[in-house]
Amino acid sequence: MYNRIYNFAAGPSMLPLPVLEQAKEDLLNYKGSGMSVMEMSHRSKVYAAIISEAESLMHEVMGIPDDYKVLFLQGGASLQFAMVPMNLMKTGKADYVVTGNFSGKAYKEAAKYGTANLAATTKEENFTRIPRQDELKLDSSADYVHICYNNTIFGTKWYYTPETGSVPLVADMSSCILSEPTDVTKFGLIYAGAQKNLAPAGLTVVIIRKDLIREDLPAFVPSMCSYALMAKNDSMYNTPPCWPIYMCKLGLEWIRSVGGTEALQARNIKKAKLLYDYLDASKLFKNPVSPESRSLMNVTFRAEDDEINARFVQESTAAGLSNLKGHRLVGGMRASIYNAMPYEGVEALVSFMEKFEKNV
Amino acid sequence: MYNRIYNFAAGPSMLPLPVLEQAKEDLLNYKGSGMSVMEMSHRSKVYAAIISEAESLMHEVMGIPDDYKVLFLQGGASLQFAMVPMNLMKTGKADYVVTGNFSGKAYKEAAKYGTANLAATTKEENFTRIPRQDELKLDSSADYVHICYNNTIFGTKWYYTPETGSVPLVADMSSCILSEPTDVTKFGLIYAGAQKNLAPAGLTVVIIRKDLIREDLPAFVPSMCSYALMAKNDSMYNTPPCWPIYMCKLGLEWIRSVGGTEALQARNIKKAKLLYDYLDASKLFKNPVSPESRSLMNVTFRAEDDEINARFVQESTAAGLSNLKGHRLVGGMRASIYNAMPYEGVEALVSFMEKFEKNV
Repeated sequence: MYNRIYNFAAGPSMLPLPVLEQAKEDLLNYKGSGMSVMEMSHRSKVYAAIISEAESLMHEVMGIPDDYKVLFLQGGASLQFAMVPMNLMKTGKADYVVTGNFSGKAYKEAAKYGTANLAATTKEENFTRIPRQDELKLDSSADYVHICYNNTIFGTKWYYTPETGSVPLVADMSSCILSEPTDVTKFGLIYAGAQKNLAPAGLTVVIIRKDLIREDLPAFVPSMCSYALMAKNDSMYNTPPCWPIYMCKLGLEWIRSVGGTEALQARNIKKAKLLYDYLDASKLFKNPVSPESRSLMNVTFRAEDDEINARFVQESTAAGLSNLKGHRLVGGMRASIYNAMPYEGVEALVSFMEKFEKNV
Repeated sequence: MYNRIYNFAAGPSMLPLPVLEQAKEDLLNYKGSGMSVMEMSHRSKVYAAIISEAESLMHEVMGIPDDYKVLFLQGGASLQFAMVPMNLMKTGKADYVVTGNFSGKAYKEAAKYGTANLAATTKEENFTRIPRQDELKLDSSADYVHICYNNTIFGTKWYYTPETGSVPLVADMSSCILSEPTDVTKFGLIYAGAQKNLAPAGLTVVIIRKDLIREDLPAFVPSMCSYALMAKNDSMYNTPPCWPIYMCKLGLEWIRSVGGTEALQARNIKKAKLLYDYLDASKLFKNPVSPESRSLMNVTFRAEDDEINARFVQESTAAGLSNLKGHRLVGGMRASIYNAMPYEGVEALVSFMEKFEKNV
């Protein structure tokens, strides 16, 4: 009825239709307040209810224990690449597992603030798999271990949570947060740019174990980059990104309404399986990722012939299957099938691929 | 028809009704793209057109010359309090004029990065006026001079642009940007949190003279805090706050449609005059600000008796005149009458005040 397309973009990406419909309904007058959420003072009662509900829902839907604080910040994962070392480096060293582009950026940024050790990387294998536990060279006296739980560009994911002993595990979950159940207790800090699985761009969610929140930061740390200051002010040291937080609240309500992260995991596995099964049987397209590391969120594939890849991107776009072009670092195609992508979208894609393969 | 109220909040605050109506119309399917703007890849053609149009409109509507770069950032003015010194302090000293709460915070934050000199302050006079040029103790070898052009909490504004010789002038215009014509050439850098006069919260606009953009920053500066990196990537080093930028574009189109900043200035003067004239004649309410420094955007007032102030806030809210409670640092009341507040809103407020005063 709205003439919407299936949007396979890596992020920003699709939002659940009921979430958008609610946003539209509320747009000029939120629940009789006489205002749009975009116009509300962040200190008003009506907005305070929205942000505190968003925080409670994060705890409820993601199963976050009370000894963790949920923060709603700005700057994306890229600012977290600096905030994590600025806040968590005490002895001045940390372990980084580099499994793709963004974990590589995080590793480089951390080196500004101390010694970032390369605990493992699969770069030599074009990042087509996640390292095994026995490959991780971990320093038991490091301040933390940093991983990227799902690699958007290379289409891999961690299927195990690495054992790091008493060293806190920090994970960038930008492209997989809430796509499956997470045992938060295994992590010291989780962060996620919201624009893939959670909300529109402009919001970064940080989940930090409270004992890791430090007040005694180096003098050069901007106030806005202190987890302690943000936590003390319940994410309202200054005006927060009010609209994306409201959209996040609607998104969390939607997740709850469809059965929570267990139900989403089942859906996401079913969606990814449909696509990987087709790819494994295809004579035209290949997925390069090792089966034990295949992402449920970002599925890469390509034909050997780059002209065919270009034609595929062009024709799929014309057919209402949008943004399938792969990242320039990898080439080929990529289908990002986050929580909000319905099963029907993946069916439509596979059916299009079948036809394309037959006629090529 | 939407049962909307007059919202006098200091920010986030009212948005122009046609802007909200357009946002509602586009919400599920932007111009036949089949997507919400909130779902678009920031690298897509359809979104690239939005952000580049927003940048062009900033130049056009604000009269920004081509030797300035417009950046769309995150983190609010509070992050700029750190980014300005991190990027502009070369010799390590800067002059700060403290005229209220936020300029005070900027001054404190700058001291983390070098010597912040207090060039002038009106603190002893409760910030009820802006210092005169002859009161500014400026250092001709400073890296920049920082001022806050409109003081949201204390209701003052600069009616002159201070003469700083060859030292770049940096201005926080969060609460007055685009409320009147600005001679941008008098400034080295202008920044503004968008949530008062421009767009919803979560967007910070920075206007920087290109020769001030430096690549050689101290090692501790987060990548996300480098103007050079942001400028080189046209504000898309990482995912920008896409939705607030789109709303900013709609807001700029609205400003153009109503006659630009000259027309807005005339409207804003008329709105403020109505309120100040009433206050100057009132026996109950007083505005404490010196006439030569009175803000066009934030009008503070109070009765001597705090019980009357509390009753006023309560009764005005019930009458659909919302968020008139003053900031806790000042007490009393404050009417924020930004660009989007219609003249009728101020008329309704004054008429309510007259009735209240009669019956008190």
